[in-house]
Amino acid sequence: MYLNTSNIKLKVPAADEYAGAILVKNLYLSCDPYMRGVKHRDASTNAQDRIVFFAADQPIVGYGVCKVVDSKHPDFKAGDLVWGITKWEEYTLITNTESFFKIHHTDVPLSYYTGILGMPGMTAYAGFYEVCKPKKGEKVYISSAFGAVGQIVGQFAKLMGCYVVGSAGSQEKVDMLKKKFGFDEAFNYKEEPDLNTALKRYFPEGIDIYWENVGGKMLDAVLMNMRLHGRIAVCGMISQYDFEEHEGAHNLMHLIYKRVRMEGFSVFDYYHLYPKFLDFVVPCIRENKITCVEDMTQGLENGPASLVGLFSGRNAGKGVVLVARD
Amino acid sequence: MYLNTSNIKLKVPAADEYAGAILVKNLYLSCDPYMRGVKHRDASTNAQDRIVFFAADQPIVGYGVCKVVDSKHPDFKAGDLVWGITKWEEYTLITNTESFFKIHHTDVPLSYYTGILGMPGMTAYAGFYEVCKPKKGEKVYISSAFGAVGQIVGQFAKLMGCYVVGSAGSQEKVDMLKKKFGFDEAFNYKEEPDLNTALKRYFPEGIDIYWENVGGKMLDAVLMNMRLHGRIAVCGMISQYDFEEHEGAHNLMHLIYKRVRMEGFSVFDYYHLYPKFLDFVVPCIRENKITCVEDMTQGLENGPASLVGLFSGRNAGKGVVLVARD
Repeated sequence: MYLNTSNIKLKVPAADEYAGAILVKNLYLSCDPYMRGVKHRDASTNAQDRIVFFAADQPIVGYGVCKVVDSKHPDFKAGDLVWGITKWEEYTLITNTESFFKIHHTDVPLSYYTGILGMPGMTAYAGFYEVCKPKKGEKVYISSAFGAVGQIVGQFAKLMGCYVVGSAGSQEKVDMLKKKFGFDEAFNYKEEPDLNTALKRYFPEGIDIYWENVGGKMLDAVLMNMRLHGRIAVCGMISQYDFEEHEGAHNLMHLIYKRVRMEGFSVFDYYHLYPKFLDFVVPCIRENKITCVEDMTQGLENGPASLVGLFSGRNAGKGVVLVARD
Repeated sequence: MYLNTSNIKLKVPAADEYAGAILVKNLYLSCDPYMRGVKHRDASTNAQDRIVFFAADQPIVGYGVCKVVDSKHPDFKAGDLVWGITKWEEYTLITNTESFFKIHHTDVPLSYYTGILGMPGMTAYAGFYEVCKPKKGEKVYISSAFGAVGQIVGQFAKLMGCYVVGSAGSQEKVDMLKKKFGFDEAFNYKEEPDLNTALKRYFPEGIDIYWENVGGKMLDAVLMNMRLHGRIAVCGMISQYDFEEHEGAHNLMHLIYKRVRMEGFSVFDYYHLYPKFLDFVVPCIRENKITCVEDMTQGLENGPASLVGLFSGRNAGKGVVLVARD
């Protein structure tokens, strides 16, 4: 990845094809695990999945918080703060504003709209409440729990009165899960010679809800430890994104033994709940019931290294690239 | 397996421990695929799963249609026809009648209570309507479609107005699926060098509902062909019952790409729907809207060979062992 420089005029062009377009200044850009996954996708799903996130000689495509500089769209005007799918550049001309939400609450950090108040927060909300349908007292396990989504799911689960255990890839992250995010337990999966044994230690009675972020051997170990009528929300399988031939899951028979529901989902199907989500989560942030930890990188030129760091476990919270403060 | 002979008195013993017991004469015994699977189960689920179906020097445990010979249970009396979990012997003393249903409709063959009107029928009903939640016009694929459950699911799906394709292991079965059960298409999976190619031929637009009976490579091929918001009802994984180490499913990433729900279920969770099920299915049988094909073996002594035949594909319909006509 490299940096390109060029000049543009800070106006939406006059041509008819730009009717409804907006020109935005990118303030914060989001580093998310799905950005690695998308290169493997086939094109048979829906419009949003067909967005090309990486293309030669093109800026990376991803979520960001932006300020509208010029608008030919009736719903947006210059000065509006928005978040949605933009590009890794200083200014972006958006011809399809479908993914954009206007930002109304500005008493919380703007960068939160790349995390807790943006796509990762909505992913956690939709996946936990709508897919997992949790009940008070249930046992919840979250893999890759220190990631942007995992840390929010864990806090939602604690608010609901669940027992929550997370795994992560370093002692620092494990400590943070317990001390900062209030997880009941956490462990470093890299130091566990046998994941099945580790899960039995933290879940002697089994797991009701598994938040699947990693796939592979972790999924197999979890399947052996699910409880009757357990639910697995498949949010990601980060361990598999680099395999051309994916590792196999060998223990799917447990889906039958324990009558387990395993469900892949996409936040795209739940954005209609965004207003309801904000009503719930903004007060939680204001009252410090939910904590956010960001790993902020300064400057667009340092963005690519931050994104790569996410996949080697060098992140220390929600990955955000600060391009401009306003 | 071998045959034991001994004499018993055709009375429920007087001792207190037999209060609530019934003594039944076994008329029809059921050969079901799950009987192979249960030996691999662990004991951590629920009471019904902990039934030991095979034990040295003990008769096989399985579903059957029986006549009550003597009863110390207020709900049953001598002469009642019942179905439930009995043993592979001529007479059985049932101390736990929890699994038993009284038979009220006798204008249909009694043996149907081992199939369409018994556990396999309820499995098809619960799995298709409650788990898959089908919609008219959806594309349904059933593996092991000629089995007791598969043939019923296919007919339910046709009644609902779905497009239905089944696979089976011989040309005879494939022909029967189309001619006898009204499947739109059927294929012999043993003659398909590439299952993905086969599925793309029958489902150019993808699969909405997959009735999972086999697991392994078939599941992997199906995952690649699921449509957005597809559902997989995991009823069994017969291809995997003999593996100590199960084959891996390598394409679970497609659960995310297509937002697919994959759900293991057990008929035990749905027996409260049995009266509603009968109201629906008995008229269908009377009006010939649903067809049943049975593979009936005469005589208890020929039962074990029939059960083994089920696992090598030598069945020709729902496996039933006729022990006595009344």
